[in-house]
Amino acid sequence: MTYTFDDYHEHMAKITDIGKAMRLQRWDKNTYMPHEGTHPRARQIATLAGLSQTLFTADWVGDMLQQLITDDTLSDRQKRNVQQSLVDYNYAKAMPAEWTEKLVRVVSQAHTAWVDAKKGDDYSLFLTSFKQIVEMKREESELRGYENHPYDVHIDKYEPGATVEKIDAVFVELKKSLLPLLQKINQAEQPRTDFLFRYFPVDKQRELSNKIMPIIGLTSDKSRLDTSAHPFSTRMAPSDVRITTRFSANNLMESLYSTIHECGHGMHSIGLNYDDYGLPSGEYERPDGVSTQMALAESQARLWENNLGRSKAFMDLLYPMVKDTFPEQMEDVSQEEFWKGVNSLQKGFIRTDADELTYHFHIMIRYEIERDLIAGAIEVEDVPNIWNTKYKEYLNIEPKNNTEGCLQDVHWSQGSIGYFPSYSLGSFYAAQYEAALRKNVQDCDPKLALGETKEIIAWLKENIHQHGRLYSSEDLCERVTGEALNIQHFIDYATAKYAEIYSF
Amino acid sequence: MTYTFDDYHEHMAKITDIGKAMRLQRWDKNTYMPHEGTHPRARQIATLAGLSQTLFTADWVGDMLQQLITDDTLSDRQKRNVQQSLVDYNYAKAMPAEWTEKLVRVVSQAHTAWVDAKKGDDYSLFLTSFKQIVEMKREESELRGYENHPYDVHIDKYEPGATVEKIDAVFVELKKSLLPLLQKINQAEQPRTDFLFRYFPVDKQRELSNKIMPIIGLTSDKSRLDTSAHPFSTRMAPSDVRITTRFSANNLMESLYSTIHECGHGMHSIGLNYDDYGLPSGEYERPDGVSTQMALAESQARLWENNLGRSKAFMDLLYPMVKDTFPEQMEDVSQEEFWKGVNSLQKGFIRTDADELTYHFHIMIRYEIERDLIAGAIEVEDVPNIWNTKYKEYLNIEPKNNTEGCLQDVHWSQGSIGYFPSYSLGSFYAAQYEAALRKNVQDCDPKLALGETKEIIAWLKENIHQHGRLYSSEDLCERVTGEALNIQHFIDYATAKYAEIYSF
Repeated sequence: MTYTFDDYHEHMAKITDIGKAMRLQRWDKNTYMPHEGTHPRARQIATLAGLSQTLFTADWVGDMLQQLITDDTLSDRQKRNVQQSLVDYNYAKAMPAEWTEKLVRVVSQAHTAWVDAKKGDDYSLFLTSFKQIVEMKREESELRGYENHPYDVHIDKYEPGATVEKIDAVFVELKKSLLPLLQKINQAEQPRTDFLFRYFPVDKQRELSNKIMPIIGLTSDKSRLDTSAHPFSTRMAPSDVRITTRFSANNLMESLYSTIHECGHGMHSIGLNYDDYGLPSGEYERPDGVSTQMALAESQARLWENNLGRSKAFMDLLYPMVKDTFPEQMEDVSQEEFWKGVNSLQKGFIRTDADELTYHFHIMIRYEIERDLIAGAIEVEDVPNIWNTKYKEYLNIEPKNNTEGCLQDVHWSQGSIGYFPSYSLGSFYAAQYEAALRKNVQDCDPKLALGETKEIIAWLKENIHQHGRLYSSEDLCERVTGEALNIQHFIDYATAKYAEIYSF
Repeated sequence: MTYTFDDYHEHMAKITDIGKAMRLQRWDKNTYMPHEGTHPRARQIATLAGLSQTLFTADWVGDMLQQLITDDTLSDRQKRNVQQSLVDYNYAKAMPAEWTEKLVRVVSQAHTAWVDAKKGDDYSLFLTSFKQIVEMKREESELRGYENHPYDVHIDKYEPGATVEKIDAVFVELKKSLLPLLQKINQAEQPRTDFLFRYFPVDKQRELSNKIMPIIGLTSDKSRLDTSAHPFSTRMAPSDVRITTRFSANNLMESLYSTIHECGHGMHSIGLNYDDYGLPSGEYERPDGVSTQMALAESQARLWENNLGRSKAFMDLLYPMVKDTFPEQMEDVSQEEFWKGVNSLQKGFIRTDADELTYHFHIMIRYEIERDLIAGAIEVEDVPNIWNTKYKEYLNIEPKNNTEGCLQDVHWSQGSIGYFPSYSLGSFYAAQYEAALRKNVQDCDPKLALGETKEIIAWLKENIHQHGRLYSSEDLCERVTGEALNIQHFIDYATAKYAEIYSF
């Protein structure tokens, strides 16, 4: 049997069709599905997942990929696609079916256990499940194999090429610069934030979000905004992108900047080429539906949310829009105050409420715990104490209980270990991409101030989005910016911005 | 290989999981999908349809069904399920793959051609496609085979057991009684309807619809209401039922009674047993996704829309709700006037706007044309003339053009031939079921008037809904009411009601 690139593309597109159906099922589950639809939806998704896995891991698919990889008629881009699919194929075949099935069962129980543990502030209820998960993840390290650190396997899952060694180095740098910066900020006079917590009717907030979306590029012909308990973005095609937000009537920031964050993710999706539908260059997920290059994805969201969306220039655009939508609430707020307010530090126990500086300490704590758990240096029983000690050390605060401490995130109960570091890396890449963007697009600030985002969007698509997952976050960064990940960009960005806001 | 009933049930449930994913894709397409999602959605649905077809028509499935049909350990209900699946299996295998693929292509072109033809009032644009469809449907008659009339094949597709002979007989009866009734109505004094076309803000109409839904049984834990261009209902599970409506700010009836109609469909879905998920007894669709027993389905919608929802008793409940929601618009309208208004005749060219009497003449015309087209007694070129002649004969009106004439319905462009008769049969079954319901549930009217619908819902579920598609509409009717379809129930119902409204 001789296979062509078209055979391969067609098969990958078919698998992707199933994946997109699952994405729609999950979108619906989180937005509109009636509550009693939960159980049938779970089985429907499971069936589709099984079909997709069967189609991708068939032996003939391996033969096809092996054959195409030596096909000299393929273009470089085609070859790269086949190479990535072969990596995915081997990844999908690496774990025994029994292990995967067991993980599904363990995770299903773990999630219920975690919900109960968090609700009742009783870590012991989660202990057994969490132990099983860590045990299985340690097994996974051995089964997949690693060179230096068993946790590398888990980082690599979401962030190909990233390792403990590299991340440790980044975080050491970060601590060195960020801790003194935080100290200066804490000693400075704090900006006004009272106006962010006034009463903002939800309908008006939705109106505002819907006005911001097309400015960032999410037009209504190919995207939509809905509400869900946790904001997310998803995609059925580059021309069918869904983002969600949540509204709180007494907190303007909650919807405003989560919308802008998800817009960044959305534009990452819109920037894909539909011609590459199903190929690694046309998607951000492996055929198993797990997103990879998470740091890259996060960088695109953070770039809009923080680097551009919280910039002084963007306030020329945003402040009048907010004032127009909420004239009374914003009556006594100047543009300068607004800009300082949306950039102010919100130190607290909860990661998802954190500002863009303290956020990284939340991540560091989770990363260090995961790394040491997988290495066997610490055990699941030790987590609450270590958690609280680290919060005291890094942020000088101590959670009152485990509910607002080590039980706050859903990730571990879902078996997601290795995911957290991507969040921080995303901010660092964002700063580096911002620098490159400003070098390549003339007059970024005046254009942002006028809402003229066309060139910015085009530069991002051309340089970043259109490659899908053909390159690791690391390699793409080097390709686009001319240097490997350099945390200095983020440190410079943060230092300059906060020095101005806190006047030191 | 020995198969158990559980093997069979599991496989059918898996196929159904794919079917439900497709239902969600279609629901989304008609409610929330951004316009540019159209093309990828079409390919995603096509892939799932192909997978479902492959899973159902595999040879081993035929072997399994043949084996189980002789398995004496099965209960009667289990045996009935297997029998029905075997009918479905043979049905799915009967047409050559090339024919099916060709139909998909022809229909895809036909739909575009029909849209253009309707928009430009130019029947000639639709002619070629329509000819191809009729030609292929004539072929289908020969390939599937029939005893008496080639059109029987097409009625049977949506309405197992129905034939030209039976439907002709029903329509002869109907004409005999309905034409004189219509004449009397036309000569009588017409009730007020002005108030139905006042200004009714859409938000308030939605509020009203959402209040009516739980009364009919569609509670928010297992159902929801959305808007779409054409109202429909669908189901991802008996506990996840979606209905849609459309709102017109200057027409109260459009959303009000289409909501009640779709509620009837929705309750038909809620009444299924989730334990039978995937089995014929747990679904209303064949594994290919085509709904069968359409007359039964329609009867459940019409029963709520017309027999119960337009009854005098229901006005005790509905009128105060409407008046409460629209106090100004309803200020000068008495309950008696409201009841007469919602039951008044709306003679016009458009089937979907028709009242519950003239509606059947719209159907008769389509039925007679389809029947004669398939038999070769008339040709596609003749349709506009025949259409207009029949409208003149039956309803004494003549469409100004083909757009409001023979191009008005989407059905033919979708290749749906044989579907129309079910709409009328649904009304006739509804009247017969209403009579049975009133015999078996004591004090139906006082209960309806108070919104106490629990017993009505339970009776419908117990006697009708829980059987899924184990029985043909005909057989179920006989089982439940003790007699075959008897049009006299509908004639009695209509005569009594209109005599009171039009005072003759």
